Amino acid sequence: MKRIALDMDGVLADVYEQLFEMDEKDFGRRKTWDEIAGKMENDTFPMIREYLYQEGFFRTMRVIKDSQEIVAQLNKKYELYIVSAAMEFPSSLLEKQAWLNEHFPFITWRQMVFCGSKQIIHADIMIDDHFKNLDFFTGDTTILFTQPHNALADNGKHQRVHNWREIAGLLL
Amino acid sequence: MKRIALDMDGVLADVYEQLFEMDEKDFGRRKTWDEIAGKMENDTFPMIREYLYQEGFFRTMRVIKDSQEIVAQLNKKYELYIVSAAMEFPSSLLEKQAWLNEHFPFITWRQMVFCGSKQIIHADIMIDDHFKNLDFFTGDTTILFTQPHNALADNGKHQRVHNWREIAGLLL
Repeated sequence: MKRIALDMDGVLADVYEQLFEMDEKDFGRRKTWDEIAGKMENDTFPMIREYLYQEGFFRTMRVIKDSQEIVAQLNKKYELYIVSAAMEFPSSLLEKQAWLNEHFPFITWRQMVFCGSKQIIHADIMIDDHFKNLDFFTGDTTILFTQPHNALADNGKHQRVHNWREIAGLLL
Repeated sequence: MKRIALDMDGVLADVYEQLFEMDEKDFGRRKTWDEIAGKMENDTFPMIREYLYQEGFFRTMRVIKDSQEIVAQLNKKYELYIVSAAMEFPSSLLEKQAWLNEHFPFITWRQMVFCGSKQIIHADIMIDDHFKNLDFFTGDTTILFTQPHNALADNGKHQRVHNWREIAGLLL
């Protein structure tokens, strides 16, 4: 059974929607995908550090469309791990765990990994929205989930998907 | 640079000392190493589940002798990760992170991994007190740190050490 290392932020949890909303509250206008495409989050949202440290930020993120249904199917066919960077913002640990328990209750605690760097992760397939994670992955298959920050970049090494239906097409 | 996956409970943090003390408070007598050697913690300490769920259990563990000094040296010579099972007891996540920050301040958040299962960990050397982690490790070198629960078992697959001086002898 092949092992999948599945990212959380930006793949299961809609970080951008959270940032768009908080940024709009502070600056009075919702930014558009087009104007932020190709920029890192730090350059897009001036107050991002404050948002990320805010209690509840990670607990209240929306679920990315179709991910619950398709992850449930992947979970039957693959050895699935949720691998999330959660060490930089201490409060995010418990919030992320609670978020997963609420929205992906079929994922057990044995399948959760919270780490600072993903270089230590050993799997066959990695699904992530960050080149920094995919580029160093030692498994066979790397799938890049489109988000604004990666939308204009392409190093030719990863399979790009734009939504969860495309992941289902590749892996189910 | 070789990568080490270093366990926390029972290797850096003295879980048994914590259990001995709490058990003595409840039952009036401190158990001895000899009488619990070869038994799993669950069979040794009748109230263990309550202890593990108690606030502060993981935050107040003592540091195992010589580990701070030797881990600091390993940290210069190896790519070091602290890999700890911390998903079963939710409150342990923040406590373990705070404990590491206090006692091993030179370990950065990028070097911390909290997981349910260690089968997903990719490294060259694993130091752990549990066969269940060492037996499935895919790297070259497995080092079994003696604790009462593993003291009488030997499957011939791992290098056994009894203290941190022996680890220094092997790796420094």
